[in-house]
Amino acid sequence: MRFLSRTSSGGVIEQLFTLDEIPGVLWTPENAHGTRPLILMGHGGGQHKKAPGVLARARRFAAEGGFSVAAIDVPHHGTRPTGEQFDRLAAEYQARVTAVEDTAELDTALYMLVVGQTVVEWQAVLTALQQLDDIGDGPVGYWGVSLGCALGIPLVAAEPRVRAAVLGLQGSPVLIGTAAQITVPVQFLVQWDDEQMPRAQSLALFDAIGSSEKTLHAHPGKHGDLPRYEMDDSLRFFARHLG
Amino acid sequence: MRFLSRTSSGGVIEQLFTLDEIPGVLWTPENAHGTRPLILMGHGGGQHKKAPGVLARARRFAAEGGFSVAAIDVPHHGTRPTGEQFDRLAAEYQARVTAVEDTAELDTALYMLVVGQTVVEWQAVLTALQQLDDIGDGPVGYWGVSLGCALGIPLVAAEPRVRAAVLGLQGSPVLIGTAAQITVPVQFLVQWDDEQMPRAQSLALFDAIGSSEKTLHAHPGKHGDLPRYEMDDSLRFFARHLG
Repeated sequence: MRFLSRTSSGGVIEQLFTLDEIPGVLWTPENAHGTRPLILMGHGGGQHKKAPGVLARARRFAAEGGFSVAAIDVPHHGTRPTGEQFDRLAAEYQARVTAVEDTAELDTALYMLVVGQTVVEWQAVLTALQQLDDIGDGPVGYWGVSLGCALGIPLVAAEPRVRAAVLGLQGSPVLIGTAAQITVPVQFLVQWDDEQMPRAQSLALFDAIGSSEKTLHAHPGKHGDLPRYEMDDSLRFFARHLG
Repeated sequence: MRFLSRTSSGGVIEQLFTLDEIPGVLWTPENAHGTRPLILMGHGGGQHKKAPGVLARARRFAAEGGFSVAAIDVPHHGTRPTGEQFDRLAAEYQARVTAVEDTAELDTALYMLVVGQTVVEWQAVLTALQQLDDIGDGPVGYWGVSLGCALGIPLVAAEPRVRAAVLGLQGSPVLIGTAAQITVPVQFLVQWDDEQMPRAQSLALFDAIGSSEKTLHAHPGKHGDLPRYEMDDSLRFFARHLG
């Protein structure tokens, strides 16, 4: 793990890093010392490790929650090389979003291209981060919706170090079996008028999650309209389970 | 409005009162002076104004939220006279609960017997309470699930003084039209494995609520298994909208 830059503002230190070919960013509270909970934050499709939503959430989780937060560019996103097949599907996906058409099948196809690699990469990044003094082997959470949920479900199912997860804006039937293997507390977000994910599929995916402690939070609005107060709920959820 | 008793413990004053034939209870934070938000708290079927869940919530809302909280016995409940038709339906209802059978239709029948009276009574109690110095005409919220939701939906729809409501554990189709008239922020609670309310009906009732700001919180478990941390969420919801 190689650190490329270090800046600080608003009580939060931001460090860009790479691990092999994986570009990432780590946010930590200023004056943080010793082991603390770490949140892995997955970005949405077409986004990247410092997309506005990721950045706002990460800075808040660090400043208010005292958490460390890490994000990486998943394959074919952010500063990573593009891929011909992925780009073709992504262009088709964007065209459907623009036409307000159902994107669930394309979402699944995009996910299938990167999921295996992403789980392994997150695990390697987690192992490297836990060797840092300011992080250590404290409890780990995962936050990711939409593509960040599709890639997060297999990570949370496979990785025992992840002890709580906020997931949602996702209902691909291909995830049902893996979701059933999750046993840690989950908060699952649904946008009631999601134009990209059929509501019944999203509810079925929540239903499939194997955890005995899971909560569905649904709000009116479209895929991108997650209300800001839901960020408060995520923060409290992680504080309850990792704090 | 006639006050019958006044006791104090844990920072909360509890006063029993009657207004005409309506028995009620008012909780206020100790050392509270002047206008403050008031939560009207509806009890469930077969319960009463000081049922354990009502009491726990009311004391917490007063002690931690600084709210005033009022509950009344709805007709045929608590210390109020029984009624032949109501009692017959209620006995049948209890038999079905014991047999773990669907109680949705009976729930609706019970509700229809008391709803008109209950809305008028709550409005009279609210008017009387708002004349007290320690309450005044501050913002008002309503909390009620199951029967407390069935009776709460027409109250919240009819009463402009109510500015936010926590509702749920309810899915009677007879409430759909009235729910559509609600415009204030609502938090709606669903128990995912509710043995008394078909899940699809509960989701349809949430769907029908007319408010632009509404949130569905669903948890695994049966009708009576609402998790304790949901009480935190109710408190924060009222703090956000009435604080």
